[in-house]
Amino acid sequence: MSPSTMTALRLESWHSTPVLREVPVPTPGPGGVLVQVGGAGACHSDLHLMDEFSDGLLPWGPPFTLGHENAGWVHALGDGVTGLEVGQPVAVVGAWGCGSCDRCRLGLETYCDHPERTAAPGGGGGLGLDGGMADYLLVPSARHVVPLPGGLHPADAAPLTDAGLTPYHAVRRSLPKLLPGSVAVVIGVGGLGHLAVQVLKAISGAVVVAVDSREASRDLAKRCGADVVVAPGDDAVAEVRAAGHGLGAEVVLDMVGSDDTLALAAGVSRQLSDITVVGIGGGSLPFGFFTVPYEASVQTTYWGNRTELVEVLDLAARGLLRAETTRFPLAEAAGVYDRLRRGEVAGRAVVVPHEEHRP
Amino acid sequence: MSPSTMTALRLESWHSTPVLREVPVPTPGPGGVLVQVGGAGACHSDLHLMDEFSDGLLPWGPPFTLGHENAGWVHALGDGVTGLEVGQPVAVVGAWGCGSCDRCRLGLETYCDHPERTAAPGGGGGLGLDGGMADYLLVPSARHVVPLPGGLHPADAAPLTDAGLTPYHAVRRSLPKLLPGSVAVVIGVGGLGHLAVQVLKAISGAVVVAVDSREASRDLAKRCGADVVVAPGDDAVAEVRAAGHGLGAEVVLDMVGSDDTLALAAGVSRQLSDITVVGIGGGSLPFGFFTVPYEASVQTTYWGNRTELVEVLDLAARGLLRAETTRFPLAEAAGVYDRLRRGEVAGRAVVVPHEEHRP
Amino acid sequence: MSPSTMTALRLESWHSTPVLREVPVPTPGPGGVLVQVGGAGACHSDLHLMDEFSDGLLPWGPPFTLGHENAGWVHALGDGVTGLEVGQPVAVVGAWGCGSCDRCRLGLETYCDHPERTAAPGGGGGLGLDGGMADYLLVPSARHVVPLPGGLHPADAAPLTDAGLTPYHAVRRSLPKLLPGSVAVVIGVGGLGHLAVQVLKAISGAVVVAVDSREASRDLAKRCGADVVVAPGDDAVAEVRAAGHGLGAEVVLDMVGSDDTLALAAGVSRQLSDITVVGIGGGSLPFGFFTVPYEASVQTTYWGNRTELVEVLDLAARGLLRAETTRFPLAEAAGVYDRLRRGEVAGRAVVVPHEEHRP
Amino acid sequence: MSPSTMTALRLESWHSTPVLREVPVPTPGPGGVLVQVGGAGACHSDLHLMDEFSDGLLPWGPPFTLGHENAGWVHALGDGVTGLEVGQPVAVVGAWGCGSCDRCRLGLETYCDHPERTAAPGGGGGLGLDGGMADYLLVPSARHVVPLPGGLHPADAAPLTDAGLTPYHAVRRSLPKLLPGSVAVVIGVGGLGHLAVQVLKAISGAVVVAVDSREASRDLAKRCGADVVVAPGDDAVAEVRAAGHGLGAEVVLDMVGSDDTLALAAGVSRQLSDITVVGIGGGSLPFGFFTVPYEASVQTTYWGNRTELVEVLDLAARGLLRAETTRFPLAEAAGVYDRLRRGEVAGRAVVVPHEEHRP
Repeated sequence: MSPSTMTALRLESWHSTPVLREVPVPTPGPGGVLVQVGGAGACHSDLHLMDEFSDGLLPWGPPFTLGHENAGWVHALGDGVTGLEVGQPVAVVGAWGCGSCDRCRLGLETYCDHPERTAAPGGGGGLGLDGGMADYLLVPSARHVVPLPGGLHPADAAPLTDAGLTPYHAVRRSLPKLLPGSVAVVIGVGGLGHLAVQVLKAISGAVVVAVDSREASRDLAKRCGADVVVAPGDDAVAEVRAAGHGLGAEVVLDMVGSDDTLALAAGVSRQLSDITVVGIGGGSLPFGFFTVPYEASVQTTYWGNRTELVEVLDLAARGLLRAETTRFPLAEAAGVYDRLRRGEVAGRAVVVPHEEHRP
Repeated sequence: MSPSTMTALRLESWHSTPVLREVPVPTPGPGGVLVQVGGAGACHSDLHLMDEFSDGLLPWGPPFTLGHENAGWVHALGDGVTGLEVGQPVAVVGAWGCGSCDRCRLGLETYCDHPERTAAPGGGGGLGLDGGMADYLLVPSARHVVPLPGGLHPADAAPLTDAGLTPYHAVRRSLPKLLPGSVAVVIGVGGLGHLAVQVLKAISGAVVVAVDSREASRDLAKRCGADVVVAPGDDAVAEVRAAGHGLGAEVVLDMVGSDDTLALAAGVSRQLSDITVVGIGGGSLPFGFFTVPYEASVQTTYWGNRTELVEVLDLAARGLLRAETTRFPLAEAAGVYDRLRRGEVAGRAVVVPHEEHRP
Repeated sequence: MSPSTMTALRLESWHSTPVLREVPVPTPGPGGVLVQVGGAGACHSDLHLMDEFSDGLLPWGPPFTLGHENAGWVHALGDGVTGLEVGQPVAVVGAWGCGSCDRCRLGLETYCDHPERTAAPGGGGGLGLDGGMADYLLVPSARHVVPLPGGLHPADAAPLTDAGLTPYHAVRRSLPKLLPGSVAVVIGVGGLGHLAVQVLKAISGAVVVAVDSREASRDLAKRCGADVVVAPGDDAVAEVRAAGHGLGAEVVLDMVGSDDTLALAAGVSRQLSDITVVGIGGGSLPFGFFTVPYEASVQTTYWGNRTELVEVLDLAARGLLRAETTRFPLAEAAGVYDRLRRGEVAGRAVVVPHEEHRP
Repeated sequence: MSPSTMTALRLESWHSTPVLREVPVPTPGPGGVLVQVGGAGACHSDLHLMDEFSDGLLPWGPPFTLGHENAGWVHALGDGVTGLEVGQPVAVVGAWGCGSCDRCRLGLETYCDHPERTAAPGGGGGLGLDGGMADYLLVPSARHVVPLPGGLHPADAAPLTDAGLTPYHAVRRSLPKLLPGSVAVVIGVGGLGHLAVQVLKAISGAVVVAVDSREASRDLAKRCGADVVVAPGDDAVAEVRAAGHGLGAEVVLDMVGSDDTLALAAGVSRQLSDITVVGIGGGSLPFGFFTVPYEASVQTTYWGNRTELVEVLDLAARGLLRAETTRFPLAEAAGVYDRLRRGEVAGRAVVVPHEEHRP
């Protein structure tokens, strides 16, 4: 029999430190799924959540349980759910749209036309609604649940639902420009960037150039398969342009998004390229005829969708994509963000409430 | 027998007024084509050329004959040219790349990788090299010559090689986003904009919204088939967004390119849309996560290529695309730019050295 | 208060004539929608259903109510349905997949991976489950319901859900090959073919060539906008190839699917073209290197999906797509198929149980 | 100084054995390139040429020098050629179109609209015109010459111009269907098939299943990176379908093209897949609604184009693509085809007239 209460890491108000609390175990409604959590990634964006917001800035707010990168095992099914079995390992798609607008019907829930129809507009589990840093996570619809392939453990899968999925989405949309001999530049080799490098190598024939000011990050990029690594400096534009065919990059992924990295991205790109800004660093690029090459497309991207997560997990199950992680028990979850803040965590910090499914 | 000299409208130096001069009739070299000119469009960008440049700003300069929107009849063929016949009506592709880089080999001469290998880097006939405001135009390679279909007169075809081709290229690249029910916004209904509206109606099922502050231009947009016309003002963003499905435009074509129109373009666009800047109005859009919807792609475009010109001419020959023009004899060519400067020309001004082919 | 019974046209066994019967009015379960029927199209494929099948050939069978082309008004909503209102005019997407496989999640329910999980595998309302030739139609999920735009009457919309949607799907997938000057050939200008011609004209710049042996059908094709019509005969391949640019068609839509039309399709197509077989005429094309041009793609298509129906209805609401129809009251529904069999119906026969919504 | 005569392997008449002869060294005309041959692959299709054709079946015929897979060094340049230097290692694009039709202008010379304007319609060097089994090869236009990247030797590059380029073209057109987790099936792991497997692994995230009746070929497939290998037999369809996600393949490449392999291809494919026939085995697939899954596209492909060869060579230079070869001196060229006929050659037989460039 399942317990009636559980431990959860709660953000109780804006500008506060999250705390562990006992809360009721939720029950899945019609179409919903209760997941026993096997991994919940701690994301830097949670620090922004704790530090930078206050009432009214977002359409939702505390209290809620943190954790928007989640995986685990199906624990209970709501009425009408088919195709899933209790005990089955699953990952959770994090972007929860209205589910009934034209975009959601096509699986594009990140770009839902009617977020105001959702419980936490633009948010989801761990972002306005209760997330996965708890024993159990309530997923309101089975469409957000994806079976884990090939023995993948939830603690390894969890960070892939965000830190893997986000760069994957950015790479996938540019695949037609990533033919053999083309150059892809990844600016910033951190949690998302090191996965971007791996994705590029796994699904394209592009030459991958990674740019990071930190030597350890450049080494990580090399281990992930980058063909060339560059330390940004006075000659960064020239050095990056010299990589590959020397004509500028077909695709640039800016995982940082500062003024400087955006300028670098524009400087190393080619006519007809894609310049995709993934990192929300608050920077701005003055777009015009004389700042960006002809017909280079500049865009942001945001997270990814269910189909793409299925593909990301397939790569992981086949050993082609792997997030570096450090695991922590749920009891230590409150301290994880302090470590994150101090830069003490190697790779992605993953809170692991359960090592295996306990019926 | 062809004459040995001809009249040509020469730009003799930067910051000068063009003048009619007698110059030698050129002879086509191997692979080249001599065209007897039947129409040479006068483009606003020629005024920029007269007014704004000085030595060293461009990789080429005066003296040269003006006119970069050209059509006429094949008059003489250089050695080795096949598939063309003397007397055949033709249009001239204006962007002359190196012809041998990978992009040129694919027909993308606007985005040539090696402009430094050309006679007038980034230019062509009427832009550094002699253009079509003369009795004859020397086209250095037959690959820049396209047969005119279906009785189209060179004077009608000439403006389509630029004022038609440029918006066509911008529309064509966005066709996958222009399905029935989608919204396309054209900002600025002038020489290029009124053709953009026609192209959108001819080759897509999109709802077309045209924005212009001038009532006459809005009327022109309606005659060209625009579904909705809007006068920009305090509520322009709201009015444009209210058109069609109300979710923002899938494609925005900014034919002006000023700070204001770029801001309007970003304001009326939707997530996953295309915001394409065609007009070189000198404006800038501060691109970032909070100024443009998620994954809306922002890009400039530049002119178009041979394949696209074939398609533009097909539309014109079938009555689906028509530039408004006023014709002038070559003897009056010098005065045409004055009229243009004073806004006295209805539609596109076309200099017509020859009404029909004279062998 | 709604009545408890209603009239329905029932197919009671294979190899029988459908009969009107009083049956209970269904009640929508969670997520479902009860539609008061305003139009139910009578499709030739229903005749196949009556005549050609017997137990075991299909995974489902009689008794059920006929009618798989349906539109009407929302009459009652099951628990949890949002975004629809009672009285709202709607069309019904006919292909009902499992809703939870990867393809269904992307809206591709025609190509559901798990039809065995549905109540009538490969079928739906009017095909194994109760259809729309009745006062009310039970739609099991709101995802199959699409609001009718712009005053479109259900009786006009109903045939578009199949006879319009099927050719639309076939055209839409080939849009990248349907640029201005390209040639699209429609073989067979009947119920689907005349809509194929209209779709091609509405959303592409292609030259449309229609082929039909019946003079009335060729006239219909012309009224629908076909640029050229051809009567098949000894020289049909040559005549069709002579249309447009003379190099063979970029896209061929075979709405018949017999041995002869398939051979004609292959004969008039070009290298790199699409040859799409829509009509289930039982024919076969011996595919190989010497029967079909290099890299011409040959494929069948089947019906269409929700997103495409939204687009079809948009075209209809804007006057760009219109099915020819003849309306019949529900009381005469049994006789409609006899008329269909005898070829007595002009355009699509639509059974109209209700002219307007009666709460 | 270059010699005036050279040795060449001549096919002097249909149904004959090729012989070595002394012939004049050709001189490149305007735009042409003389290549000193460093590698000329011996292709099975040459055996067809010797055995199966007679006057009138092809638009061209003997005498000519064999060898249509060629690479070497630029030896002399015709007038007007820029961007190439004497001594530079190059590969030769084998499909020589008219160069001036719309398709050739886009680089699609394999599908030239006007082969009748070429010297050997549908052919080229080694196919109607003199090929590369000689000291020197005359290439009529510099557009057929591609620089060799990264130290690649002409003898390694030569087979890639056909045995590598042909499967590459077939894979590349299907890339949008080859996302992670998708299944690609290669039927026949011979000269082209083992390169198809490598290409799939290098540029996509698909699971690759290779089918061959020969154990050595299945071993070769594994060494090339195939995820699963299957021996065709009674259960071949079931075994192949069981690979990957179990729903049938997204892409099937039939490198054989017999009745049996075509039936296997159709049997293992999925709805919406690509079934691409590369091998000209003379087979036929009876295409219809009941023999091929819904909307699976069936097509042949033929060779590849310049841009694709650039990409193939890039993969080879980076170690991602490698043809197995056995080298023979030109003096032994006549005997190579006998060995080929007897199945005595491991990998591709390459005739190597010159090991390095001799000015």
